Amino acid sequence: MAKKQKTFRPKPRLPKGMRDIRADEISAMNNMLAKLREIYELYGFEALETPAFEYSDCLGKFLPDQDRPNAGVFSFEEDEDGHWVSLRYDLTAPLARFVAANYDQLPKPFRRYQTGSVWRNEKPGPGRFRQFTQFDADSVGADSIAADAELAMLGADSLEHLGLKRGDYQITMNNRKLLDGVLMSAGIDPTAQENAQERLTVLRAIDKLDRLGQDGVKDLLGGGRKDSSGDFTKGANLTPDQIDKILAYLATGAQERGDVIGQLEPLVTGSQIGQEGLNELVQIDDLLNAGAFKSDRVCFDPTIVRGLDYYTGPVMEAELTFETTNEKGETVRFGSLGGGGRYDGLVARFRGQDVPATGFSIGVSRVYSALQSLNKLEYDKTKAPVVVLVMDQEHKGTSQAMVQQLRNAGVKSELYLGTSGMRAQLKYADKRAASLVVIQGEDERTNDQVTIKDLDKGAQLSKEIEDNKEWRQGRAAQQTVKSDELVATVKTMLAAQETDGQA
Amino acid sequence: MAKKQKTFRPKPRLPKGMRDIRADEISAMNNMLAKLREIYELYGFEALETPAFEYSDCLGKFLPDQDRPNAGVFSFEEDEDGHWVSLRYDLTAPLARFVAANYDQLPKPFRRYQTGSVWRNEKPGPGRFRQFTQFDADSVGADSIAADAELAMLGADSLEHLGLKRGDYQITMNNRKLLDGVLMSAGIDPTAQENAQERLTVLRAIDKLDRLGQDGVKDLLGGGRKDSSGDFTKGANLTPDQIDKILAYLATGAQERGDVIGQLEPLVTGSQIGQEGLNELVQIDDLLNAGAFKSDRVCFDPTIVRGLDYYTGPVMEAELTFETTNEKGETVRFGSLGGGGRYDGLVARFRGQDVPATGFSIGVSRVYSALQSLNKLEYDKTKAPVVVLVMDQEHKGTSQAMVQQLRNAGVKSELYLGTSGMRAQLKYADKRAASLVVIQGEDERTNDQVTIKDLDKGAQLSKEIEDNKEWRQGRAAQQTVKSDELVATVKTMLAAQETDGQA
Repeated sequence: MAKKQKTFRPKPRLPKGMRDIRADEISAMNNMLAKLREIYELYGFEALETPAFEYSDCLGKFLPDQDRPNAGVFSFEEDEDGHWVSLRYDLTAPLARFVAANYDQLPKPFRRYQTGSVWRNEKPGPGRFRQFTQFDADSVGADSIAADAELAMLGADSLEHLGLKRGDYQITMNNRKLLDGVLMSAGIDPTAQENAQERLTVLRAIDKLDRLGQDGVKDLLGGGRKDSSGDFTKGANLTPDQIDKILAYLATGAQERGDVIGQLEPLVTGSQIGQEGLNELVQIDDLLNAGAFKSDRVCFDPTIVRGLDYYTGPVMEAELTFETTNEKGETVRFGSLGGGGRYDGLVARFRGQDVPATGFSIGVSRVYSALQSLNKLEYDKTKAPVVVLVMDQEHKGTSQAMVQQLRNAGVKSELYLGTSGMRAQLKYADKRAASLVVIQGEDERTNDQVTIKDLDKGAQLSKEIEDNKEWRQGRAAQQTVKSDELVATVKTMLAAQETDGQA
Repeated sequence: MAKKQKTFRPKPRLPKGMRDIRADEISAMNNMLAKLREIYELYGFEALETPAFEYSDCLGKFLPDQDRPNAGVFSFEEDEDGHWVSLRYDLTAPLARFVAANYDQLPKPFRRYQTGSVWRNEKPGPGRFRQFTQFDADSVGADSIAADAELAMLGADSLEHLGLKRGDYQITMNNRKLLDGVLMSAGIDPTAQENAQERLTVLRAIDKLDRLGQDGVKDLLGGGRKDSSGDFTKGANLTPDQIDKILAYLATGAQERGDVIGQLEPLVTGSQIGQEGLNELVQIDDLLNAGAFKSDRVCFDPTIVRGLDYYTGPVMEAELTFETTNEKGETVRFGSLGGGGRYDGLVARFRGQDVPATGFSIGVSRVYSALQSLNKLEYDKTKAPVVVLVMDQEHKGTSQAMVQQLRNAGVKSELYLGTSGMRAQLKYADKRAASLVVIQGEDERTNDQVTIKDLDKGAQLSKEIEDNKEWRQGRAAQQTVKSDELVATVKTMLAAQETDGQA
């Protein structure tokens, strides 16, 4: 016997951190995104779509929340002209390119929202994918602090529009200028180039307050910190006096906006930038009050940093405050949904001058998980199809005609598209969770009749469960009717199922 | 003076063949896709989303309509494990991977639809982008010819649901087996490996019938053809007798389905595969008749090839038959919107055995252009925002409160987010095509009043155009009212604009 040549068969697998999304999730996701769009448009934000990849030099290296500026991006060299292109890692960098390219035509300030996939070449983990969806709102060319306040209101209104109760979420704001003010009053000029690294180390330490507590942050501001695994993180080597100033600032946690402002006043004395930051918070507070947004929706927390180095003013985070169970089975606060803040540098890369801008980004899959855990997702109503079986391939035209009648009447329905027998067809109907099955065997054909079966009910009978008598009367397991009564009967039986479902 | 260091400033540009999409198009596109989804779900197709890129070996090399199997795809090597990944170039290859990976769990046949971006590393041209959207329906594991007939019905129903009139579109079907049957009867066994290249050359020649006419195809079937630029294309070198057989077949153009069947009968005599192909067309005709789809919606055309080499049975094309103006200003038939057909090999790559499948893909931007040229696009109703100006930054809280009242009442509205003066603010309102502008100057504030201006009307007055008296009475250019009458007055003025717009 000739030796059979071995053909290469690829394993049907996805690259790590990628996933397929099935119909139920797609419908709930689409409905969720549509609701978000409603609010963003009510606020006057204009939709924009940009392509999946851009020239790498246009996207720049503004990867948030991490310290490896070049890693994390999927890049590839184009065929012909040898330019590098990168898949977008967020929606802000493409916005900067868009604004720079269309600056003169755009209204200024320019409010835009965008939703779409972004890609990160990072280690995936549970619930952490390398392709995920963001939903961003940005106001570009907006030098008024009202733009920042508006994004906080937008965040709060969006979450409630999705069905989250007041108290289940919290928008928290801070101002980078306050942090710089405290550094200044501790004798570290944050604007001096030689202090850039020190400032970053301090900000990064403060950012870990949640996780490490005051003591951990104290170590990181001082000589450094050894974690439980023995790994050592170098500290900022501040003096005890400097450390105390920063810790005093950090003691001002999330509270009523007015209280936070009161506590911050003495802490920024003598620092112009700190005073500026505080003034901005005061203005934001005024605007939020004018919009009737109380601290239970938008509060201040001076310890919020937001890792992204490019923020220059107000920063904000959206958080869910209720508890959930994490992948280890532990009860935890649901946590962050997204955030944003004011940045100036992005458009300046192209134009050479700062363009004031502020933005807010929602992690769509986080919001989705939250709504899922609260049972607030909205799935499409159209679900189970009516399946028309093909008892005899010679007569499949008759079955096709029935399907067509049902579809013309707006009933989701399917012809069985295989060539297998009754058993396989019923298995198919079962896998499709068919609402009804339509059958025309030889007897029925002879009498110009058709049988319509309720599979759920049939399953109940086959299990010989004693059904509630009334229910059994209200809902026949099957009916045989004249062919021209097909559509009317199907509609009646579907309506009965709906009533049952609601009972 | 110290020499200023030159900083690198990237030019804000898009890679060629990529584009940004603005709000109007996004809304019309979303509405169009939603309508398509309705029909696909009515037909029982289930939504699926797959990631933007996959392992290159999983996607394979099934690039349609071109002969360079490896080119045309954007591929890049992943960082860590050294695997190559590719951006998907269609939605069929990812479906094959998905089906192979989830074969046992899926209902069979499995109807799925998917819409999303695909990427081609090809030379862009007018209206030809390197990122574009497809809308695909496929039935996998469907060995019944009813699956192919269904896709034609789906295509026809979809186009009408989008607003295309009957007669403005045409679904055209053929069967690859007929072409093979004609080859067979001309003495070329299309299943023989050594004839693969010859078969491909013949199919490619037939595919050019539209463009080159019978004479051009005759040359390509024979010794070859020199085009007007002098370029020479090698021919298939068939004998005159063979060429005549094929040309006789090609003379059977698009007509009533019954007529085509009648004309084909003598041409496939003696070829088993040709007879099989004809039988399948007869069955498709029966099913279409059963569904009451006449030839004005779905017809047969034996000259349809579809370039994609992997088709194994019925093929189909969707075409718009009305005329439009191309980029050169010439009047042309609108042409192809998409197509598809039956294929067996895709899933077999993974599983080692054929899985019968058939699919239909719509080029979304083509359909969009068609609806645009017919004025059938549906834009969102929410349009122009009300713009609330900020006359005094000290009192922007009051303006914010007005915006909030309007938004709470469901009126799309915006606070001016800059810090510039009146002139810039009016320019902003103009660029935003504001429906109304809300102003509270010092006088109004003192009297707890607010002024609401109709910019359109204002522009008319400033041009000192003599307006129709009745229109002027019906629509005041501005009103000054008590602050607490803001929302009611805005709503009344917006309603008046709507009435004007309809008049």
